[in-house]
Amino acid sequence: MRASALVSSIVAGAFCGLAWLPLALAQTDPLPSWNEGPARQAIVDFVAAVATEGGPDYVAPGDRIATFDNDGTLWSEQPVYVQLAFALDRVRALAADHPEWKDAEPFRSVLAGDLNAVVASGKKGLAEIMAATHAGMSTDAFEQVVADWIATASNPRTGMLYTAMIYQPMLELIDYLKANEFEVFIVSGGGIEFMRAWTERTYGIPPQNVVGSSIRLEYVETDTGPVIMRLAELNFIDDGPGKPVGIQSHIGKRPIAAFGNSDGDFQMLEWTTSGSGRRLGMIVHHDDAEREVAYDRDSPVGRLDKAMDAAPAEGWLLISMKDDWKTVFPGR
Amino acid sequence: MRASALVSSIVAGAFCGLAWLPLALAQTDPLPSWNEGPARQAIVDFVAAVATEGGPDYVAPGDRIATFDNDGTLWSEQPVYVQLAFALDRVRALAADHPEWKDAEPFRSVLAGDLNAVVASGKKGLAEIMAATHAGMSTDAFEQVVADWIATASNPRTGMLYTAMIYQPMLELIDYLKANEFEVFIVSGGGIEFMRAWTERTYGIPPQNVVGSSIRLEYVETDTGPVIMRLAELNFIDDGPGKPVGIQSHIGKRPIAAFGNSDGDFQMLEWTTSGSGRRLGMIVHHDDAEREVAYDRDSPVGRLDKAMDAAPAEGWLLISMKDDWKTVFPGR
Repeated sequence: MRASALVSSIVAGAFCGLAWLPLALAQTDPLPSWNEGPARQAIVDFVAAVATEGGPDYVAPGDRIATFDNDGTLWSEQPVYVQLAFALDRVRALAADHPEWKDAEPFRSVLAGDLNAVVASGKKGLAEIMAATHAGMSTDAFEQVVADWIATASNPRTGMLYTAMIYQPMLELIDYLKANEFEVFIVSGGGIEFMRAWTERTYGIPPQNVVGSSIRLEYVETDTGPVIMRLAELNFIDDGPGKPVGIQSHIGKRPIAAFGNSDGDFQMLEWTTSGSGRRLGMIVHHDDAEREVAYDRDSPVGRLDKAMDAAPAEGWLLISMKDDWKTVFPGR
Repeated sequence: MRASALVSSIVAGAFCGLAWLPLALAQTDPLPSWNEGPARQAIVDFVAAVATEGGPDYVAPGDRIATFDNDGTLWSEQPVYVQLAFALDRVRALAADHPEWKDAEPFRSVLAGDLNAVVASGKKGLAEIMAATHAGMSTDAFEQVVADWIATASNPRTGMLYTAMIYQPMLELIDYLKANEFEVFIVSGGGIEFMRAWTERTYGIPPQNVVGSSIRLEYVETDTGPVIMRLAELNFIDDGPGKPVGIQSHIGKRPIAAFGNSDGDFQMLEWTTSGSGRRLGMIVHHDDAEREVAYDRDSPVGRLDKAMDAAPAEGWLLISMKDDWKTVFPGR
């Protein structure tokens, strides 16, 4: 009897040992791709401060909201926004069904591969491309189209899958925040349903934690059941001053940490860090021409100018891709 | 040595015992306020089916989305929607600053306590009341006004706090679903920020899990820092066909379970239960004149007519407040 009791309690002890595994893992470096430096230190200090119960900067888990921009903050946005590359590919894929596009701008230029002419078509041209490629179908159909495209689409410069050109240090940061009971949201100027088709698989951020720009939706009953149709009508632009509005409408709480990379994130950073209590605002600075692309003030894509000038006074820290990141892309 | 090893492994075994506590709790009745019957059985069977790994109806935790209407489903909506009572109280509270209201409809009738005349003022009158009481202030200021009001506001018929006239069986249902790894959302025709001011304290449902109707918001920089202002302009009506749209835009996933009580929930129930795989759609039927109020087809508030007729064919189950609920309000 005593022997079996000994055995069972040893077995229990052995099983029980597994319970300590997460703790053990938590003690290994959660940010292995971050070099020692001010950026990494600011993150670690901030998380320790808000997560220390009884401490002066303690924040209850439910209020630990962190928001991340996507393009240029979680994945590469050069040479063009991935969603624009998707739209242009869709025009090519749908061209066979639209013979009229051969003679109609901006489609003619898209099919001719004349990107400058497409850009020259301006907002009106871009709106026509978006309407032709993002609307007039159900949300389910659109999600499938995006999922199929993103599975094989690759960056024209590197040949890497777009979903492989995500920033390993930021993935570690997202997991580190989650491990410290933060709720993490993407707040991007990109299309909300374009992102939702792949953010969970790519970043571990589920659809309900993705905030973005949107077109109007309509619930429609059909013979084969109800669908939600995507209308060719702009609903909301989640960029610049739209980001705090998108945060308020989707989350209803003010973030205590925000991460961006361009002037489009200015108001999200401002809204986050001007709140009371300890706050963290950080800007990914693309200064690594060797491992990614070096750009800021003069870039038409992801311009970082006003926010970089305001950073010192606002207390926003720049993350130097060149100096602060050991690795840029997963496995590289 | 051997003795201490025995002791330590016994200690380990003892600590380990604690790990089984949640399981033990889970074995006590999670729905004590529900009488045995088809409604309770349908809930228990559904949860068991979707939560059983390897079973034919298994649903991964991340996709276990449940949506609840609020007025009439989680709390009482009679004699008038609580948010309307709030708006009328605000008109009275603000009247001193608006002497012009004495002679201007619909405010004159509100101040005279002539509810019929207020109703007679129709959508235009109601819009004016909403604009005067819900807009023209920051989101933070509005949240405080609502929180202060709801702390003491009570139902004119019962004298009970509105937040005490919530349905105990539905609170147990929400906790039961959460305990089985569902993510629970409120999807209501009510104002999203009116609800967010108290849903976490009242139901344990945080702001980011509340979907509702909204007015337009605007990010504004002020001398004392940025604020988000509430504009007197309708943004979205989260009712009827608006509910599946609100679900798609906020959650981005189709629910597998939905709970409502009126025709305003028809499309939410339809969108939920017409999806593939096991689904659950339930309707709270207010048939308990003794403990609450008995109403359905002829009620101007929370009319249940079309959805009740469609329920059998759609496979939606009615929850009889009279027969299925042991208790209605907490502690009663």
